[in-house]
Amino acid sequence: MHNASIDVLAIGNAIVDVIARTDEAFLARENVHKGAMQLIDEARAEHLYAAMGPTTVISGGSGANTAVGVASLGAKAAFIGKVRDDELGRLYGHDLRSIGVRFDVPSATEGPATARSFILVTPDGERTMNTYLGACQNLTPEDVDPHTVRAARYVYLEGYLWDPPEAKRAFRKAVTIAHEAGNAVALTLSDPFCVDRYRDEFLGLMRDGSLDILFANIHELRSLYQTGDDATALAALRQEGVVAVVTRSAEGALVVTREETRAVPAFPVERLVDTTGAGDLFAAGFLAGLSRDLDHIGCARLGALAAAEVIQHIGARPQRSLAELARQEGLWP
Amino acid sequence: MHNASIDVLAIGNAIVDVIARTDEAFLARENVHKGAMQLIDEARAEHLYAAMGPTTVISGGSGANTAVGVASLGAKAAFIGKVRDDELGRLYGHDLRSIGVRFDVPSATEGPATARSFILVTPDGERTMNTYLGACQNLTPEDVDPHTVRAARYVYLEGYLWDPPEAKRAFRKAVTIAHEAGNAVALTLSDPFCVDRYRDEFLGLMRDGSLDILFANIHELRSLYQTGDDATALAALRQEGVVAVVTRSAEGALVVTREETRAVPAFPVERLVDTTGAGDLFAAGFLAGLSRDLDHIGCARLGALAAAEVIQHIGARPQRSLAELARQEGLWP
Repeated sequence: MHNASIDVLAIGNAIVDVIARTDEAFLARENVHKGAMQLIDEARAEHLYAAMGPTTVISGGSGANTAVGVASLGAKAAFIGKVRDDELGRLYGHDLRSIGVRFDVPSATEGPATARSFILVTPDGERTMNTYLGACQNLTPEDVDPHTVRAARYVYLEGYLWDPPEAKRAFRKAVTIAHEAGNAVALTLSDPFCVDRYRDEFLGLMRDGSLDILFANIHELRSLYQTGDDATALAALRQEGVVAVVTRSAEGALVVTREETRAVPAFPVERLVDTTGAGDLFAAGFLAGLSRDLDHIGCARLGALAAAEVIQHIGARPQRSLAELARQEGLWP
Repeated sequence: MHNASIDVLAIGNAIVDVIARTDEAFLARENVHKGAMQLIDEARAEHLYAAMGPTTVISGGSGANTAVGVASLGAKAAFIGKVRDDELGRLYGHDLRSIGVRFDVPSATEGPATARSFILVTPDGERTMNTYLGACQNLTPEDVDPHTVRAARYVYLEGYLWDPPEAKRAFRKAVTIAHEAGNAVALTLSDPFCVDRYRDEFLGLMRDGSLDILFANIHELRSLYQTGDDATALAALRQEGVVAVVTRSAEGALVVTREETRAVPAFPVERLVDTTGAGDLFAAGFLAGLSRDLDHIGCARLGALAAAEVIQHIGARPQRSLAELARQEGLWP
């Protein structure tokens, strides 16, 4: 039994989701790439907001969603990310702390507003994200508290952190401290276009020993190895020497190691409403499982369960206690 | 065919809903009256917010919810209410205008912040509201534009408007202008405790000819006539000479006139998630139906359909096009 005071520390962009249902025609008219995350500036943010329908506002951000999922399972989670001291920043802090996620990065007192992502959800449940990074651009290595990193058994990082200029250095600092303390480091590839922007650096992180665990969906994996052929991508992944979790929506997930590739089915879903957060919650279940010393299949089942909960409603944060759900399914003590 | 440029003008408190799931124990611990709306001051608002779990933020306010429901049915809606020029105030305006509700009351540039209601939703789907009125206290008769009132075939008012000091005068001004223009006036009783605070005034409004239509749920009706016996309350109501719509949750609704009482069943619901807005959306369907010259039963069926949509998800604003739903059910042209 590891003696960490934090099971999972997530580091990521602190983003409030502003979610509207829309139709395919709106995506075409606004020329957004369906299913992807695109970065937008303030002018574009104002234009999109004025054009989109009534919204639901829920805290989000990939890494933070994972931290909340871990806490909802009853494991100990912490988050490092940057908000401004504005209304949305206070909302963001409340929503983390009130579910038990430790979050003590000071809010920025100047500079851009708390980040928001305008998320367009089509009738098929697919989400398309338009993110204004705002205050996330002020996350720096100074925000990465070494004590917190040392205390965390798993440090989980977003590929999206490569987008704001200073966050990459924060990321590298966390990796170094975590490994010196003997803790494991996980990365999610975040988005196929994000992979496209930073492919060589992400491959470098796997190959220079920075990463122990990799999370990717099948689209991100294809982008990583620049192939449309899944067998080719998976064969390349197997050689990287990390524990890799590849999610494939309704087709379930694969856990890929040098030794073997094992498949876990998706959890049955009554009604797919909004896929936002599916990957984040899968990672939450997997990492929480690891922190309780479950085997990879048990971890992936927990991940599938958590992902299934979050795609059945609007927003990327669980609406039910994941610990309760997992106990009902016999997946959790 | 009436030639109004607005089908329904709603006047009410402009409130952003801050919604959290909770359990019965939390309600008991915080000493809140389950199912009711209680007014809170800023200190209590801060205490409750700190104590409650992660939230979903969605524009609300009883009258505004009704206006949005009318717009979602494809009829012409307008709203009069007061926000501050802060982040939540901008959100509020966006969410009205983006679904087609006309809203041109200027935001307050000073004074208290945009109103918020901390809504606690228990596992049975019941909602308990704790409302900080904030900027609503600055709604005055000057905000009631006579042209807008004259242009509206139905003017719909909240009983909750009796709470902020000046809004009552705004309310009376609207009634006078509407009747001078030959338009109809509707009131919702809002909440049993609200009825308790203003019983004599609400009865007076019915009896002095201020009201043409009354909306109430059965609890509010019992409070109005201070009786636990529904037959007694309904008999008293019949004598008032208004068209009265009495909603009774899963037991459906009654349309009560001096001449007759007719029952309409509730619409079947797959899963009750959050009752917030049920009454508001019932009123939306009923008034939109009246504006299209449907008979009372047709209007009540539309109301039941709209209410059923809104109680199957978090938040008091429809997530699907009510016009589309109503057409699928053959209730709407």
